[in-house]
Order: sequence, then C-alpha cells, then structure tokens
Amino acid sequence: MRVLITGAAGMIGRKLATRLAAEGGLGGKAITALDLHDIVAAQAPDMPGTGISVHVGDLSEEGASEKLVASRPDVIFHLAGVVSGEAESDFAKGYRVNLDGTRALFDAVRVAGFGPRLVFTSSIAVFGAPFPDVIGDDFHCTPMTSYGTQKLISEALLADYSRRGFFDGIGIRLPTICVRPGKANLAASSFFSNIIREPLNGQEAILPVPRSVVHTHASPRSAVNFLVHAASLDGEAVGPRRNLTMPGVGVSVGEQIEALARIAGPEAAALIREEPNETIWAIVQNWPTRFDARRARDLGFESEKSFDEIIETHIEDELGGEIGPG
Amino acid sequence: MRVLITGAAGMIGRKLATRLAAEGGLGGKAITALDLHDIVAAQAPDMPGTGISVHVGDLSEEGASEKLVASRPDVIFHLAGVVSGEAESDFAKGYRVNLDGTRALFDAVRVAGFGPRLVFTSSIAVFGAPFPDVIGDDFHCTPMTSYGTQKLISEALLADYSRRGFFDGIGIRLPTICVRPGKANLAASSFFSNIIREPLNGQEAILPVPRSVVHTHASPRSAVNFLVHAASLDGEAVGPRRNLTMPGVGVSVGEQIEALARIAGPEAAALIREEPNETIWAIVQNWPTRFDARRARDLGFESEKSFDEIIETHIEDELGGEIGPG
Repeated sequence: MRVLITGAAGMIGRKLATRLAAEGGLGGKAITALDLHDIVAAQAPDMPGTGISVHVGDLSEEGASEKLVASRPDVIFHLAGVVSGEAESDFAKGYRVNLDGTRALFDAVRVAGFGPRLVFTSSIAVFGAPFPDVIGDDFHCTPMTSYGTQKLISEALLADYSRRGFFDGIGIRLPTICVRPGKANLAASSFFSNIIREPLNGQEAILPVPRSVVHTHASPRSAVNFLVHAASLDGEAVGPRRNLTMPGVGVSVGEQIEALARIAGPEAAALIREEPNETIWAIVQNWPTRFDARRARDLGFESEKSFDEIIETHIEDELGGEIGPG
Repeated sequence: MRVLITGAAGMIGRKLATRLAAEGGLGGKAITALDLHDIVAAQAPDMPGTGISVHVGDLSEEGASEKLVASRPDVIFHLAGVVSGEAESDFAKGYRVNLDGTRALFDAVRVAGFGPRLVFTSSIAVFGAPFPDVIGDDFHCTPMTSYGTQKLISEALLADYSRRGFFDGIGIRLPTICVRPGKANLAASSFFSNIIREPLNGQEAILPVPRSVVHTHASPRSAVNFLVHAASLDGEAVGPRRNLTMPGVGVSVGEQIEALARIAGPEAAALIREEPNETIWAIVQNWPTRFDARRARDLGFESEKSFDEIIETHIEDELGGEIGPG
C-alpha cells in the first residue's frame, strides 16, 4: 500500500513516519511506498524495500495538492497546518494554510476520484467556553480562536466529503500533547510540557498558572497510536459523524507535579518555580478541562490511564529510559 | 446610511427591499443609498430620495466582492446563495456560491476595514439527525447535506471575523419559510407551502408525507422582521456566539391542515390529496422538528404564534386579504 503524510516534518509527523518504518506496514498491509510532504524537507526514516518520496511545498498553492495525490495513496495522514499562536497572529496565513491547504488537498482527492482513507488531525480548539465539567461527544463547537475555527471548518468539509464518498475520512481531535520533546516554545500551552521535561533534565521550569488548572493530555506516542488506529477503522462503524474527540488523561497541574515527584523524586518537583503570568492564565481559563471521549473509546482508541504513565512514556521514548541530564 | 442586500432578486431579498423602501430607513436612520446585488438584476423598489444601485454578478468571481463593498455600506444583508437541492445536485456550484462567495464577501469587508453590521441568513440545515424533541440553542451542528455544511462553515467564519472585529456579524438560522408565494417548486420542502397556498387559491395540492410530520415554520414577513431586527441588535448583548436559531411555529402537517380548515373552510382542506412519496418521506424524516430558540426570543426576535397566524399573514401579504382564485 501507499501512504502519504502531510506535515511530515513536524513532531507528530516524524514520529508517525518512524513508527510506520519500524512496523513496515499499516493495518496488516505492507507499505510499498511512503510520501512525506511538508513545507521543509522531512527526514526519511530507514525503511528498506519501501520507496520513500520527500515532497516540499505548500498544499494551498495552485496544483500542489493535485501533484501530491497523483500517485493515489491508499491512506493519507493530513497533519499539515500552522499552530494556534501563528494562526492567531497571522490571520491570512492561518486561513491559507489551515483552510485553503486542507480544502485543496480534499478537492484534489475528490477530483482524482480514488476514495482513500483520510485521517485528519483536528483539535480540542474546536470547543469554546463556557464548558461543563466533562465535555461530551455531542458538545457544540464554538471555537474562540481562528485556529479552532479553521479546524472546525476542516472537520465539516471532512464529514461532507466522506458522506459524498470522495474519501473515507476520520477526524481526530487531539488533546494537548504532553510531554512535548525538544525546547520550550512560546505557545501558551508550553508550560504543561516544560514543567515535566525540564526537571527530568535537571533544569528549572516556570509554572505561570495555579496548580488547580485542569487539562487533558496524551503523549506523543498516543497521538501516533490514534493516527494508526484511525487508519484502519471501519468507516461504517463510525457512521456519519466523522470527527472524534480522542481520549486523554485529565489532571490538574498539581497532579502533574505529584506524578513527577513520584517518578523523579521531590528534588525534580522542586525545580518548578511558580511565576504567575496573567496573560497565560487568561488564555488557559478559556480552555476545556476534561472530555468524555466515549465514542473514541468505544471505537478502540486508547490513551495513557494516568499522568505517571505519560511521564514514563516520555522517559522511554525521549530519554532512553534514563532520568537526568545526559 | 447605506445598505447592501445580496441575493436581492430572491423571494426574501425582494420583500426586504420593499420593506426598507416602505419604511425609508433602518433602526431609526434614513437610508440614503441602497445597493441590490444578485446574479440577475433585482427589481428596484420605489424609494424616492434614495440612490438605488442594481449590481449583477457572482460574489465568488475575482474582484466582484471588493467592487461591491467599495461604497462601504453600513449594513450588509447577505442572503445570496444556491438552495439546498441545487447544492446537493451540483457539488462544485454549491461550494463556489455558498462558501467561496460568502468568504469573498467577508474578506472584501475585512480588507476594506470599515467594520459594518453584517446579517447573514443561515439555516436549520446546520443540524443533523438524530434530534431531541426540542432542539436547544446549544445543540451541536452535524449537517447531513452539502448546503447545511456550507451554512455551518459560513457561520464559523462569521463568528471568527466578528471576534476579530472585521465586521459585526449576526447569523440567523431561518426555519422553513411558509407560506412561500408563487408556484410549487421541486424542493422536498415545497409541500409545506403547497398544501396551504394551492387550496387557498381553489387548487388541488398533493401531500407526500404522513400528517404526523412535525416541522417549524415562519412566514416570509417574519423572515424580513428577523433581518431588520438583526440589523439593529447590540453586538455586545449577543456575545461571541453570533449565530442564532430563529423562532417559529412548530406544528404537525395535520395541524397545518386544521388551521387551513378553520380559516378557509373544510372545502379548502378537502383539496389536499394524500399521495405518499417514499423519497420525500425519507428526506423529511432527517429534518429537525421543533426549536427552543430561547436566545433569539430573549434578544427580541418574534415570529407568528400559531399556524393560523401564518396563513392569515399569507392572505394579507399575497392575496390582498381575500381568499379564493382571483
């Protein structure tokens, strides 16, 4: 089978490609060709016997999507997009990449007429405050960011294009991915990962919000599991509502820190310095807390069961199983 | 003030223009200029002292929207669009007109930067089955047609563009408009009007579904009232959720027919011939029945209170107050 990943140079895209390379297949079928697309050249994983093509470009550019799907991939993972902060600060770019790029890809598939499975990464940013304690699968979508709006529009297109039979789409709404590897970034959600990643590495981390803040997390490994699982789902079993809120671990920041202390000792937790930031606190108060995610669980999507498990996953996948500065 | 109506040659657009002409103003301000846009030339109402411009074109065409809003109207009524049946039978045209046209208009306003009030006619087609007995304002949107998808996407854009301050948008989700004047058409919902309009005119009408079917209706006059009311709403009072389900009269087909018999006599009701149509019945079963519409009512939107009133409105507005063939 042939597989296409857009956004293949991003954190999740790289991990997905590595996973597919390690397994050599998807849903029990061998992968004979893998197309990696992004606005920069994605690194090709080591995958003997599989033809790997690296494509560089912008899906919203005239003809780019048509060219990309001309090889008629059996499964398309559409991860490409600009992140929340950039979509808010650069209105035109956010709509061009996240809406026009997605629609161009969907339309290229529609016109080519080969009906692949298409897995799209949406986001819990489709939801807007005020929220109930636990957000059910039928909670209405009233995004409060341009990013969330673009994800909601893409979800609506995915459902309609699937209903029409142009492709067999599954949209997965990712919770916050934690622990993100790499350096701290400027995203408002960055601290959720920083307060774990940095202390595990012997470094100080800043906590800008109260410990009572509750949020839902899943590991990068879970995100890849969701994508792989979605690729093989029975579309009939999913039914017409093609966009699914993924499961995750709903915990307070205080519980995150308790888990860190259990796993890496109180000296690790002591590296977290509280430095309240009103701007970040104001943003975070509009974020959803916990999700029911019953439909996704019933369809077999699984995440970690505790934040301890999320930290252990990070230690295994990013730190070679060892805590502490290299 | 300057007012622009898109879709001005359509049934609601014509009635809105006539109403504005009769009142000479909107929200207490005199209308000094009125722009009427459609794909065919809209008829200009008699409006002495007001400069009326008739524009013909397609909003999705390069530069068309920019040209249309160059005169910086204070209020824009965006009614233009292809109807449900056509959006389903011609996929590309539906998306071009209902999505690209709407987005082009919104973007032209954004780029011109004059921040008008923008009233958009959405539809209860944003909702998809299964439904509760009464659909609340927080019911989730899972459209089951391309038309409903296009309306949902337009709503999402309207909310985001309003949040960004590009314009001050209000989306109104219209229930089925009944009694539609004119000839019967091929729309699946056509019978709701036919079974009233034709008997009032001494003609036979066909009822393709059981009398137990429940549906929500508002008159063309109410639709115009909604638009005029929306034009003067306080955006702050509406808040970030800019799309409102309009009130209407939720009745069974049997109750529609009883109202007809009360007003026009049993001989009028006897002109309705039951001729079950499985295709129409299958479509209608996926339509929503009753709406709570509490937010809209709280914001001062009003519809008829009974189906009798809807029939009386039709007799006043379309038949010159007289029942029977002219």
